Amino acid sequence: MNLLSNRFEVPYYAVIFTSQRTTGDQGYGQMADQMESMGRDQAGFLGIESYRESSGAGVTISYWKTLEDIRHWKSNPAHQIAQDKGKQTWYQSYSVKICKVERAYDFENM
Amino acid sequence: MNLLSNRFEVPYYAVIFTSQRTTGDQGYGQMADQMESMGRDQAGFLGIESYRESSGAGVTISYWKTLEDIRHWKSNPAHQIAQDKGKQTWYQSYSVKICKVERAYDFENM
Repeated sequence: MNLLSNRFEVPYYAVIFTSQRTTGDQGYGQMADQMESMGRDQAGFLGIESYRESSGAGVTISYWKTLEDIRHWKSNPAHQIAQDKGKQTWYQSYSVKICKVERAYDFENM
Repeated sequence: MNLLSNRFEVPYYAVIFTSQRTTGDQGYGQMADQMESMGRDQAGFLGIESYRESSGAGVTISYWKTLEDIRHWKSNPAHQIAQDKGKQTWYQSYSVKICKVERAYDFENM
């Protein structure tokens, strides 16, 4: 998702996924790429942005048209396998917040 | 804000501030620290988390009890000076999203 992404009409929805990775890749990178690619093909997908620091702390925020779209992607069988692997192996801890985006605006320095 | 932060009763509010920094510090670090410190003292402040990658792309998410608390901090005179300086100097671009957190849950790998 481009930084200047507020081209969607509010309200839409955001999933804020804050996480602390365990050490070592252990197949995480490949699965993350695969899940992002699959996520982009889901109904109602609007965008995604990810940031991770060298400490292993990071956040992924995905944007969706409706809560139903979020539920649908959460219950996708391949995504569920990835979620299980995340709990077993890739994440020390995580926090999920489901949010309704009520207002959005951008600034660009020309 | 601790990663496992979902100790607040929903609904509460999140401000997702995604930004692309310009190059060089130019007083940014000091002002960011000062604003975070002031923000923590505001009415309705719940927490803050920040991630920035070496590319200069990053996100700060702050959490608040009410929309009124967010408006109040946005209009704080010292914060307004920082916002102006941000537009003039520190940010190539940014995007602000005001969100209502409707559901939140955590996972911790024991």
